[in-house]
Amino acid sequence: MLIVPEREIAALMTRASAFKAVEKVFAAMASGEAYNFPVVREAIGHEDALYGFKGGFDRSGLTLGLKAGGYWPNNLAKRDIINHQSTIFLFDPDTGKVAAMVGGNLLTALRTAAASSVSIRHLARKDAKVMGMVGAGHQATFQLRAALEQRAFEKVIGWNLHPEMLPNIAKVADEAGLPFEAVALDGMREADVIVSITSSFEASLMADHVSPGTHIACMGTDTLGKQEVAPALLANATIFTDEVAQSISIGEAQHAIAQGLICEGDIHQIGAVINGTHPGRTADDEITLFDGTGVGLQDLAVASAVVTLAVAQGIAIEVDV
Amino acid sequence: MLIVPEREIAALMTRASAFKAVEKVFAAMASGEAYNFPVVREAIGHEDALYGFKGGFDRSGLTLGLKAGGYWPNNLAKRDIINHQSTIFLFDPDTGKVAAMVGGNLLTALRTAAASSVSIRHLARKDAKVMGMVGAGHQATFQLRAALEQRAFEKVIGWNLHPEMLPNIAKVADEAGLPFEAVALDGMREADVIVSITSSFEASLMADHVSPGTHIACMGTDTLGKQEVAPALLANATIFTDEVAQSISIGEAQHAIAQGLICEGDIHQIGAVINGTHPGRTADDEITLFDGTGVGLQDLAVASAVVTLAVAQGIAIEVDV
Repeated sequence: MLIVPEREIAALMTRASAFKAVEKVFAAMASGEAYNFPVVREAIGHEDALYGFKGGFDRSGLTLGLKAGGYWPNNLAKRDIINHQSTIFLFDPDTGKVAAMVGGNLLTALRTAAASSVSIRHLARKDAKVMGMVGAGHQATFQLRAALEQRAFEKVIGWNLHPEMLPNIAKVADEAGLPFEAVALDGMREADVIVSITSSFEASLMADHVSPGTHIACMGTDTLGKQEVAPALLANATIFTDEVAQSISIGEAQHAIAQGLICEGDIHQIGAVINGTHPGRTADDEITLFDGTGVGLQDLAVASAVVTLAVAQGIAIEVDV
Repeated sequence: MLIVPEREIAALMTRASAFKAVEKVFAAMASGEAYNFPVVREAIGHEDALYGFKGGFDRSGLTLGLKAGGYWPNNLAKRDIINHQSTIFLFDPDTGKVAAMVGGNLLTALRTAAASSVSIRHLARKDAKVMGMVGAGHQATFQLRAALEQRAFEKVIGWNLHPEMLPNIAKVADEAGLPFEAVALDGMREADVIVSITSSFEASLMADHVSPGTHIACMGTDTLGKQEVAPALLANATIFTDEVAQSISIGEAQHAIAQGLICEGDIHQIGAVINGTHPGRTADDEITLFDGTGVGLQDLAVASAVVTLAVAQGIAIEVDV
């Protein structure tokens, strides 16, 4: 088997590779070639940790396996290591033997950023100029870097519940040669694309904070009870997601569904747009919304890409098991 | 992290270590210190394979992780490798980091044999003399070897749908210095302990094939639809299992439950007997029945024991991930 340690990922994986891998697997999900397994997610009653498995199989890419790991909230304070810890395991679908083990921490950030980025490429207006960020934590920097590559943006605007964190994303804008402006939530009306990436349990972005024609990627809601935007915003938007079952149960759509504002049939797979079986955006004043819930197949796709790169560069560790 | 390859397991792991690990984790399950996660099991639509994950956490042993793998029915014919392929991954419950990877093929056989063996130690009559085997495949040899260590048996009797396989278990009896006799199913009335280990979808062992005072371990039924013994046999027996939820859904008890012959409350955790919170066998003419369904915690327990042994003997492979 091959091992690609966490420390090697930063030098190996590019945003372009992550984008390509995630776009391809979203397409495979929509065409029925790839599917995710039921997610296991357990509060284990030790160190307040959440632990679980996200698995799947992509018949088109012959990628089989899982991401295992979770959230250990005391890691940073107690041990100076990051709280999200995960490892991706790939199996040979022809034999069932373990094929590769890949550090999953940085890859999780990259695959999540790639997901919103894929939605921007396929759903945002071509003439989008102002990029809006709701949230300014560590994940937000990955999101913004990836988003800025998708359109000829001229400005970044940002809001965060704790404004002292805004320099995180201002720095990313600066690196891209773009001006950054801190705004109130209603200032988001200026944005053509908005990425929301918070760990909030109540809506920040309201329907009247968003102008017609905007594309919004909601990337923070991956659990029952979390919420980033007002349900009314979903009622006004054409909604896309990575996986419909997750969108309605643990994603941003859970609230609009519960309130009867939308139904399951209103939510479309982003892969259908990639495959050309859904038209995507059909008008300049349409609001499109991507509910990015995060699926195991994304992890497997980027891990598989990393293994290929690591082998090509001779840095995969081979262990005879 | 530490890696213990499949090829090292045979020399490292003893039946005694497997017994101790499985007995301990069954006890921890009954005391509420250890629990299994929901099982993921998927027919992936490739190579007719069944693939999935069995995870759990044992707070008392600080063992966290999963077994991943499954059944690839074409492996032996197409590739000359065994059909059951699995790998066990252990995680550090304090940090969420991956801690060890252990080959799971032989361990699965050893932990399954250890389970019936634990049931024999705690439930069979002390004066048991005749050991009965229903099933004579590869797994049956592991079962018989482990069983024979639990009582002063004087004879082994065996039945198999395909009698030409009986020499498999006759050889194990011979190695233990015991006579072996092939019998019809009603010949099992002579047995004091019976282990049933088949992959049957209908009952072989009927209620009138079993004498009062016998202990039966049903080890083959781990899927909806499989069946080894007549439901009437469960109605006559005191029933124990590794995990009640599995016993009634995918274990041998599924049929007696479906027919209303027993209810969930009639099935007891074997760990409760180990812990002394259930009396176990209370009469010489009582039939006791162990429904061994197989849980992820057994895999984690034996893998953890193997890692300790491999480290002590300096043969664990250390990889800095």
